Amino acid sequence: MKVRVYYEDTDAGGITYHTRYINFCERARSEIFFTRGILPGLGHHNGFVVRDIKASFLATSTLGDMLEVTSRILTMKNSSIILLQEIFKEDRKIFSMEVVLVYIDEGKPSRIPDRFKEIFTQL
Amino acid sequence: MKVRVYYEDTDAGGITYHTRYINFCERARSEIFFTRGILPGLGHHNGFVVRDIKASFLATSTLGDMLEVTSRILTMKNSSIILLQEIFKEDRKIFSMEVVLVYIDEGKPSRIPDRFKEIFTQL
Amino acid sequence: MKVRVYYEDTDAGGITYHTRYINFCERARSEIFFTRGILPGLGHHNGFVVRDIKASFLATSTLGDMLEVTSRILTMKNSSIILLQEIFKEDRKIFSMEVVLVYIDEGKPSRIPDRFKEIFTQL
Amino acid sequence: MKVRVYYEDTDAGGITYHTRYINFCERARSEIFFTRGILPGLGHHNGFVVRDIKASFLATSTLGDMLEVTSRILTMKNSSIILLQEIFKEDRKIFSMEVVLVYIDEGKPSRIPDRFKEIFTQL
Repeated sequence: MKVRVYYEDTDAGGITYHTRYINFCERARSEIFFTRGILPGLGHHNGFVVRDIKASFLATSTLGDMLEVTSRILTMKNSSIILLQEIFKEDRKIFSMEVVLVYIDEGKPSRIPDRFKEIFTQL
Repeated sequence: MKVRVYYEDTDAGGITYHTRYINFCERARSEIFFTRGILPGLGHHNGFVVRDIKASFLATSTLGDMLEVTSRILTMKNSSIILLQEIFKEDRKIFSMEVVLVYIDEGKPSRIPDRFKEIFTQL
Repeated sequence: MKVRVYYEDTDAGGITYHTRYINFCERARSEIFFTRGILPGLGHHNGFVVRDIKASFLATSTLGDMLEVTSRILTMKNSSIILLQEIFKEDRKIFSMEVVLVYIDEGKPSRIPDRFKEIFTQL
Repeated sequence: MKVRVYYEDTDAGGITYHTRYINFCERARSEIFFTRGILPGLGHHNGFVVRDIKASFLATSTLGDMLEVTSRILTMKNSSIILLQEIFKEDRKIFSMEVVLVYIDEGKPSRIPDRFKEIFTQL
């Protein structure tokens, strides 16, 4: 997924504010579902929630930059998924993140439905 | 209400991003209710929604600035309220906004409940 | 310009947070320059700044919605421009805004450079 | 530091958007400097930058919640600091993060100035 850096994404340091990269990754995860006509889960009783994040900020980006977000599965368990998401500026990797997503049903960690497993397998 | 300008509020221009002032005003409106232990309405079926905004950006602010948001009623009608909200940096007015809030019940403009009218009257 | 509504754009009311529409309009203005390989001005000493906004929130949008932002000139003066920016969800107009932009050079309102005037005239 | 959860911090899931906690931690780090009348570094050529984040999202929070952010040093090296930042809702820990900050001077990792070391030691 392509993401443009706009004013709202930058800060007074002149570069992209650090948590915006984590937002861009969330957009990419949502887009996986949106492009298939699925809402990834609304409300905290149902759907995927972020449990853990391990992120490295490798280089900076600035206003107007066009970035690319990639996502692939590292581990798929019964009720959780570990994704590796990376952000590139041209050919340079500027951000890397491992994110643990837990599937929640009725407020409790639950077996990921097959249709969701299939979608992630296609990444 | 006092509001500090943090990195996330600024942009690559080195100043506070323009819509942050409108967010600060929304915080101030919410705080009116929070400090009284009331949630100002959850969901778009119930509560106050912003219908119109007329805002003027008079001067800038930067990282670390402590701002003050003031709110007062201009007009109170049956189902809507017009508030004047202003933001000051020290003694200088840097932002001014008239906001029209409409009270929604079951998704339709409705009579503002008396307990909410009273709260606004106390401003 | 097309804009997708992501989680970060929504709030606990279940709909798009009101100032996000104003951000979307700013993205559209910046994109006018970015697509021509121009940075619209960095720093508050130089470039266009928002002086006034008159915005109407006509209808709501929700997570996953694909919106369209349109921009056209209402008035072009020596040192300022008034734009009409509107946001549509499918064929329905959900947001409308008149924004006054002032061109700043060395911190003072200044004559808009011809190359910028041309760009806006092409809208 | 106390932080209130406002509409802009929540999402359509009805809870605080995950990266807002990381923003709250950044506010707390900035506030350490602001309360001492120091700007923590402007521009990406000078000051502390976030290199790595390890974050765990332990529980949720919602609109109107008052949260508390705590910060303490885990490791202080020549040019980097590891902080543990935690967020509490009443007595319950809802977020925990280890953040590696690198001190940058002229764009390169550099020895942390003594006056900054002292400030962190006082935490």
